[in-house]
Amino acid sequence: MDFRSDNISGAAPEIMAALADANHGTASAYGNDEWSRKLDAAFSALFETECRVFPVATGTAANVLSLSAITPGHGVIYCHEESHIAVDECNAPEFFTGGAKLFTLPGVAGKIDVDALKTALGQGWRGVQHHPQPAAVSIGQATESGTVYAPDEIAAIAAICREHGLRLHMDGARFANAVAGINASAADLSWRAGVDVMSFGATKNGAVAAEAVVFFRPELAQDFLYRRKRGGHLFSKMRFISAQLLAMLQDGLWLKLARQANARAKQLADGLRTLPDVTVAYPVQANEVFATMPDAMVARLKAGGAQFHPWSWDGRMHRFVCSFDKTEADVAALLKLAAG
Amino acid sequence: MDFRSDNISGAAPEIMAALADANHGTASAYGNDEWSRKLDAAFSALFETECRVFPVATGTAANVLSLSAITPGHGVIYCHEESHIAVDECNAPEFFTGGAKLFTLPGVAGKIDVDALKTALGQGWRGVQHHPQPAAVSIGQATESGTVYAPDEIAAIAAICREHGLRLHMDGARFANAVAGINASAADLSWRAGVDVMSFGATKNGAVAAEAVVFFRPELAQDFLYRRKRGGHLFSKMRFISAQLLAMLQDGLWLKLARQANARAKQLADGLRTLPDVTVAYPVQANEVFATMPDAMVARLKAGGAQFHPWSWDGRMHRFVCSFDKTEADVAALLKLAAG
Amino acid sequence: MDFRSDNISGAAPEIMAALADANHGTASAYGNDEWSRKLDAAFSALFETECRVFPVATGTAANVLSLSAITPGHGVIYCHEESHIAVDECNAPEFFTGGAKLFTLPGVAGKIDVDALKTALGQGWRGVQHHPQPAAVSIGQATESGTVYAPDEIAAIAAICREHGLRLHMDGARFANAVAGINASAADLSWRAGVDVMSFGATKNGAVAAEAVVFFRPELAQDFLYRRKRGGHLFSKMRFISAQLLAMLQDGLWLKLARQANARAKQLADGLRTLPDVTVAYPVQANEVFATMPDAMVARLKAGGAQFHPWSWDGRMHRFVCSFDKTEADVAALLKLAAG
Amino acid sequence: MDFRSDNISGAAPEIMAALADANHGTASAYGNDEWSRKLDAAFSALFETECRVFPVATGTAANVLSLSAITPGHGVIYCHEESHIAVDECNAPEFFTGGAKLFTLPGVAGKIDVDALKTALGQGWRGVQHHPQPAAVSIGQATESGTVYAPDEIAAIAAICREHGLRLHMDGARFANAVAGINASAADLSWRAGVDVMSFGATKNGAVAAEAVVFFRPELAQDFLYRRKRGGHLFSKMRFISAQLLAMLQDGLWLKLARQANARAKQLADGLRTLPDVTVAYPVQANEVFATMPDAMVARLKAGGAQFHPWSWDGRMHRFVCSFDKTEADVAALLKLAAG
Repeated sequence: MDFRSDNISGAAPEIMAALADANHGTASAYGNDEWSRKLDAAFSALFETECRVFPVATGTAANVLSLSAITPGHGVIYCHEESHIAVDECNAPEFFTGGAKLFTLPGVAGKIDVDALKTALGQGWRGVQHHPQPAAVSIGQATESGTVYAPDEIAAIAAICREHGLRLHMDGARFANAVAGINASAADLSWRAGVDVMSFGATKNGAVAAEAVVFFRPELAQDFLYRRKRGGHLFSKMRFISAQLLAMLQDGLWLKLARQANARAKQLADGLRTLPDVTVAYPVQANEVFATMPDAMVARLKAGGAQFHPWSWDGRMHRFVCSFDKTEADVAALLKLAAG
Repeated sequence: MDFRSDNISGAAPEIMAALADANHGTASAYGNDEWSRKLDAAFSALFETECRVFPVATGTAANVLSLSAITPGHGVIYCHEESHIAVDECNAPEFFTGGAKLFTLPGVAGKIDVDALKTALGQGWRGVQHHPQPAAVSIGQATESGTVYAPDEIAAIAAICREHGLRLHMDGARFANAVAGINASAADLSWRAGVDVMSFGATKNGAVAAEAVVFFRPELAQDFLYRRKRGGHLFSKMRFISAQLLAMLQDGLWLKLARQANARAKQLADGLRTLPDVTVAYPVQANEVFATMPDAMVARLKAGGAQFHPWSWDGRMHRFVCSFDKTEADVAALLKLAAG
Repeated sequence: MDFRSDNISGAAPEIMAALADANHGTASAYGNDEWSRKLDAAFSALFETECRVFPVATGTAANVLSLSAITPGHGVIYCHEESHIAVDECNAPEFFTGGAKLFTLPGVAGKIDVDALKTALGQGWRGVQHHPQPAAVSIGQATESGTVYAPDEIAAIAAICREHGLRLHMDGARFANAVAGINASAADLSWRAGVDVMSFGATKNGAVAAEAVVFFRPELAQDFLYRRKRGGHLFSKMRFISAQLLAMLQDGLWLKLARQANARAKQLADGLRTLPDVTVAYPVQANEVFATMPDAMVARLKAGGAQFHPWSWDGRMHRFVCSFDKTEADVAALLKLAAG
Repeated sequence: MDFRSDNISGAAPEIMAALADANHGTASAYGNDEWSRKLDAAFSALFETECRVFPVATGTAANVLSLSAITPGHGVIYCHEESHIAVDECNAPEFFTGGAKLFTLPGVAGKIDVDALKTALGQGWRGVQHHPQPAAVSIGQATESGTVYAPDEIAAIAAICREHGLRLHMDGARFANAVAGINASAADLSWRAGVDVMSFGATKNGAVAAEAVVFFRPELAQDFLYRRKRGGHLFSKMRFISAQLLAMLQDGLWLKLARQANARAKQLADGLRTLPDVTVAYPVQANEVFATMPDAMVARLKAGGAQFHPWSWDGRMHRFVCSFDKTEADVAALLKLAAG
């Protein structure tokens, strides 16, 4: 009963099969192999627009390399105060951008408060040499609270970006769960709503280690090859990363896996809501459930072997993450234990 | 009637004389001149403890070079949300530290709220690889609100620093005004209260361009020579910077100038308080006055040629800074104009 | 007949099996899994000394993260002018160290000329603020010319390092080939000869993507967790990288694979030497062969489908790399084609 | 008899007068003062083309800030192996560019060997992700050997730059001496020959501390305000730096001072050439003389109180620098001592 993260699961059988399939013969190294060369087309088809795609192997790498392509060292990146880039990446965004500032903003359920963003941009920093210069906004999709920005919510932020000359980045470590969780296409949830570049995650969704930086504006990708290499993120046997990404896109595997995970989160949230004194904190739109529970219930769950993380400073709220391979029975067992 | 900043004034006659005096004969370059070699002793005498002193020529340089000596790229610097390093240095702290994060804290009158600092340090980041590591606290003395940390206020922050293994930095761009404004010695307001390294400002106080990084723990200064040079802050004809600093320390000039400036700020605040609908925002402990005034009064002042800056996002509060060379008549003229 | 690099091969069956074995059940993410926790002990056994081991997934990452742990931004890294870090890592060493300088040295057959190193260190940079400060020496093992430093050759460099207060780094992307190619232990070719930290490569030797930073002085590893994360090199499902490394060390697989590769290189060199007008450039001590050949032979090889890279600016010398999975027949076919 | 450098002299009387003149009344800080606002026009007139000018206070700052404006972190700067940026700036160029590589080239008398530059650019790094990307060439004017690039020599390098898409930077710490030393205008020795951006030095030529970054292509200066501030190089009382620069340009003071210095160097070189067993190493085109002398002569000079630096690793060659304020008698005295 391990609900600590989606990272605690292994890889989907299709991914392992793709690795095995890729392990035949020789192939040009460093991305000039037949798998990697298919990525642009595969993602362009998925997103219904021309994309430039760069595989990397960690979500942090995807985030910070793409942010570095749109933010100078004297720039500001506006993001949610609980965003992964602000809290969980050990200053990697600052490092890769050469010292850009992450300006954190409040907002309910993991989404940037649009008024707070406007206020921050209204400070008058643009063009004033003492202040770092507004450069980018970064949003999580799904958010760190397991919620999903609707297309019009993204568009509202994108409109502000255009007005202020900012680029819009999306951290899509759980983009599959977001797309699976809302009635919208990959395009609707990204470039069509105004996103310029995104991190497309596969690892949490059942890959071994595979993420993709997807540029919707090819001109932003001009020197990305060098940024990736300079970050130590150019894989020699890249076919093994690209093969995972292609397998994910093959026959909609990425959505199939995400739907499984999301369904389990919904099952869990529905079950928890029936229990006394339990509050599910946010709309459950992806594969995460945040809940406050009576201390006795927490203790009972822990004693029964359930694993999950506290998610607030006061330890009152807890997070449950459903991986692609959690079963209906897994969740039912957890709920039974919770019910006591 | 220019009260925009203390930077709008020129230099004190004693400083100009010191420059002229230093302009004789040849002298070793890059800090091996007779003026620069006296700095350690002069500052050690002033601070009543052994100091290592490095002249630089801007306050930003002093701040960010010293912060870089105590903060790794994966570190966190805790500071007030209105501090100069957070707001007015265009990401120089991030640049010089290799990407450290400035974690901004609230607090009344420009002083860090101690409970907010404790809460921030209580997040459990220490030792967890996902999070940047707590490394330093930086305080302004005087603060950006023109207030002065009392020795016990510094000591309270220093105690937290020791408990959490952090270094304590002080931005003393207006340290002279702070010392002049409170009944305490330079030592009491710095190392004796727990400060490890500070930026000692002279420029705002009547120098042409002269600041000093003062280390109270010589072991922290081990590679500072290289940091300074690598930042482009090693002056060839350094005698001209060191001579300014020595002149400031000679016969207490630094305090004489600061007392003049502080007296004018007090005169201004006292006068403003007598006017209807005017509120002076913070205790006036140094050479700055923050006040909210009726719109008509602001308009009258501007029309009459008075210069001062708005100091809040809504434009309601304004800042008046008194330089060392403002006269009683200057302030009286401003007050007369304000009174209408 | 693809001899372009050892990166063009896939992974050894044992590695694929290890990935499959690791793909069971849940496991703590980010290195707290049962595979990763075994690494320190496994490598300590291999090296006959206490090691701190950090898996990463590219050779560049291993090199530059380890270099950053021993070199400040104002430091100098002395290395061979053809070394991978100097030529093939797109300024990643400079980036990760915060701007350290790579001081390149000549030397026959890929090995640093000891006298050139002494001369460079004799410039008098130490302690002079204008100059970057000598910090580290980095050597390749095997070198970029396919040669292997003997223990006493390493010791001679290490002695200079000790004398000048430098750390000694070893780029062991082909360390397995080096150990297999010379009558010495892993310990003899590393820490016992004076190496402080090394990059231990597995990818070129038959892994999918797995390298290890191995510290022989644990005190140097103090903040390495943060460096790795800040570089975007902390893998969430790290079990899949660690499992590859463990598989390599299991029953001497790493040496078995390297010996196979080396044997093929020897076969190739021996064969080439019998051909008219062919010169094999360096001692063939690992899995690479460098040869100058008549133009007609080069053309014949290319026409026949053989793949290999030119390795000198004038295009006269070519490089052949034998992967772990090259067969005796593969090399025989190449030789037959070369013979015409 | 101090000939160690031009930095050992103080400031010219006209510069001290300019500082005094600038010390009246209040002035906007940070470059919005009447002196600073005149710089663009003054330099545009001098250079006979539209310039964007940014005062800074050290030569290193001028060099590295301007290089950072034309070189990304994954870039290469080609420069002479004895250039100031390569040898004497403690990795400041690497730091400010975010880790660019300085590729050093040989060349007689301090000038880049054009064939060596062509060879370096012919390595095929452009567009290959493993290699850093050629971005800029930097030349010294005058060079570190006291020689001056003629306009056609600069143009030859500039043509290579254009062919390869590189920017051309000029380190003009002694630009005044170069212009004074050759029959060419400031324009001929800079942009007209193909220079894109330069560091224009005044400090060595008799200022207290004043250098200017001069952009001949305004589009390269777009974010320079932020680069300067982020480097800690924005002076609050900037009038005092700008006033020095304006004074230098007033009535040709910069050339008058440089001609004095150059005349003394010529006098010294002419005198040394008459002495037995003395070799003057390079053409004396600016204010520096490099000479090899018999040991007895060196000893006699030192014993007589003459100061000068050895300038080669073996200590055989020595450098004599003539400041603006050296007199004919000063040089005659040195020569008399040398003659014994």
